[in-house]
Amino acid sequence: MEVTHVLHMNEGIGDASYANNSLVQQKVLTLTKPIREEAITKLYRKMIPESRLVIVDLGCSSGPNTFFVVSEVIKTVEKLCRELNHQSPEYQVFLNDLPGNDFNNIFRSLTSFKNRLSQEMVSGVGPCFLSGVPGSFYGRLFPSKSLHFVHASYSLQWLSQVPKGVENNKGNIYMASTSPSNVLKAYYQQFQKDFSFFLECRAKEVVEGGCMVLTYLGRRSGDPSSKEGCLIWELMAKALNDMASMGIIKEEEVDSFNIPQYTPSPSEVEREVVKEGSFSINRVEVSAVNWNAYDDDGWNKKTSEFSESEVASDGGYNVTKCMRAVAEPLLISHFGESIIEEVFRRYQEILTDRMTKEKTEFINVTLSVTRKA
Amino acid sequence: MEVTHVLHMNEGIGDASYANNSLVQQKVLTLTKPIREEAITKLYRKMIPESRLVIVDLGCSSGPNTFFVVSEVIKTVEKLCRELNHQSPEYQVFLNDLPGNDFNNIFRSLTSFKNRLSQEMVSGVGPCFLSGVPGSFYGRLFPSKSLHFVHASYSLQWLSQVPKGVENNKGNIYMASTSPSNVLKAYYQQFQKDFSFFLECRAKEVVEGGCMVLTYLGRRSGDPSSKEGCLIWELMAKALNDMASMGIIKEEEVDSFNIPQYTPSPSEVEREVVKEGSFSINRVEVSAVNWNAYDDDGWNKKTSEFSESEVASDGGYNVTKCMRAVAEPLLISHFGESIIEEVFRRYQEILTDRMTKEKTEFINVTLSVTRKA
Repeated sequence: MEVTHVLHMNEGIGDASYANNSLVQQKVLTLTKPIREEAITKLYRKMIPESRLVIVDLGCSSGPNTFFVVSEVIKTVEKLCRELNHQSPEYQVFLNDLPGNDFNNIFRSLTSFKNRLSQEMVSGVGPCFLSGVPGSFYGRLFPSKSLHFVHASYSLQWLSQVPKGVENNKGNIYMASTSPSNVLKAYYQQFQKDFSFFLECRAKEVVEGGCMVLTYLGRRSGDPSSKEGCLIWELMAKALNDMASMGIIKEEEVDSFNIPQYTPSPSEVEREVVKEGSFSINRVEVSAVNWNAYDDDGWNKKTSEFSESEVASDGGYNVTKCMRAVAEPLLISHFGESIIEEVFRRYQEILTDRMTKEKTEFINVTLSVTRKA
Repeated sequence: MEVTHVLHMNEGIGDASYANNSLVQQKVLTLTKPIREEAITKLYRKMIPESRLVIVDLGCSSGPNTFFVVSEVIKTVEKLCRELNHQSPEYQVFLNDLPGNDFNNIFRSLTSFKNRLSQEMVSGVGPCFLSGVPGSFYGRLFPSKSLHFVHASYSLQWLSQVPKGVENNKGNIYMASTSPSNVLKAYYQQFQKDFSFFLECRAKEVVEGGCMVLTYLGRRSGDPSSKEGCLIWELMAKALNDMASMGIIKEEEVDSFNIPQYTPSPSEVEREVVKEGSFSINRVEVSAVNWNAYDDDGWNKKTSEFSESEVASDGGYNVTKCMRAVAEPLLISHFGESIIEEVFRRYQEILTDRMTKEKTEFINVTLSVTRKA
């Protein structure tokens, strides 16, 4: 499986699309907002009187979240401009994702984004120039010393490839409590290799004093096979194993399917940054969001871009749709299209059952760093 | 009709797609290559030792032509680097078109473009960073003083809107010999307004010494309703009028349909550049290409990206497909989808007949300008 060709969120704006099933990701963005505000404020005060601010979102996907961060960053800067009595800068915004991402959908909603932004910013807003950048962030994407603020949320846990040497991860589709130790090691090494190369690339692209705020789907625990990061995939493996035992799919097919993801701990992330050496760490923070995004305490539905009518009470249903929007292309590329409905029907049953029994959360690891001089 | 929402070449890679029916446009690019080479060579020698070269293609569309100019410009610069014993610059390439353009298709062929480029450039090539920029070039698209080379071919003849006050252009869908004089005037004024605003925007975006090479579908004659620019649309009007007289569509529908295009003469283009004042003119050249692109003398099919098997002998068929790839979305938005096959069947008959009777050519007006200090 060539991850850069296969991996993309479900496209379009239909019922199974990522655009309509990305509330978890939006909640994570809301949770991590103060970290971005702090980073942007520091950056802006240092950069004055730069007349152009270049902002990048890596793994922007396609849906309401795509413009969420851009809009927030611009508002933060505009507020600072008012406070400091400065002229607004020009914003150059690069939205990046793999070439399989639905950029057409983003581009066709650009006008409504711009209209909304200028309606909200009654005191005016600097001109905003937006581009789409197709390609893997595990490689160079931008000219040298050309970026001021780099953001990524829920994208860096995706690896550039399924780790090599995990053939004996039988019955699992990700790291799991029953995974052999060589599998856990292979996953970690792939993470190290990918993230250190990511840092090398961005070190060339970000200007001195420029900053990055990166949020991983991760874990708190030092144990890579702990439930926090792995349970969601273990339950999907259960659905697939059940189907294999009934002869609907082949056991070998399940054995050879592995999710190209790594959910790191805060210290694993920190270690790579220190090792690479180009960035200084401002913050590493951990937060959590319920699997069923509609179910969190204190979540204000009114501020969400998802209308209240979409708020279903069935958590298993919601989580299945969220995971389907993310994982369907990977599953189709390996198992074919015909089994998809069945997989997610079974997955939903399993999720619904499990979610009544325990508190199920995604763990977010957020890193804020500055490019050293 | 909101031109920025409706106007786009036929998407995808199917039989009626622009990607498969853009040989005319490719031949125009080949014809105008020396003008770009001259401009780029002058620019590069002046710019040294700039380490980043920012290239823009306005109205890039989606198909084999999309990467044609980018690839050529990069090769020209690399050749200069070898001659002058310089290091290759970093290339930042912005491909622009309206939001309805099929950017997904471009982005998914990026890897094969990059592979082809590095195969062809055995002595190496500087890193190339590509983005897609959705939006009308009749407006700002890029930050101030950020561009070195701006290119547009067969895109600037499209106006930002159908001119106001052409209600009495009855029986025509464009300027025609039978158009009332107020219609010709309205079209010309819309061209002036659009092109002068285009120049104002680009004047802000292009660095001093930066250059633009712009090729219009145009005309030689001073008369805006001369056949050169208008016949191709007059024949489409004939197909529509025939259908109206048979009651298949309404006469009022034809009367209220007008193509948002203006095919200017060299002096009309020059006049606007001089009036706006930010650019100095290096060259204005006129060339011609047969309506049936497969039929030109001296056209080497081997160098074309279109395989020889696609070369049909039926000129009317070829020209119809070319025009359909360009005009179908406009027609559908006005007349609906149901009449499309019939329109193009009739159009093909009319074209085939006319092309046996006279030499039919598109006229290209190419302008090369430099941003003044």
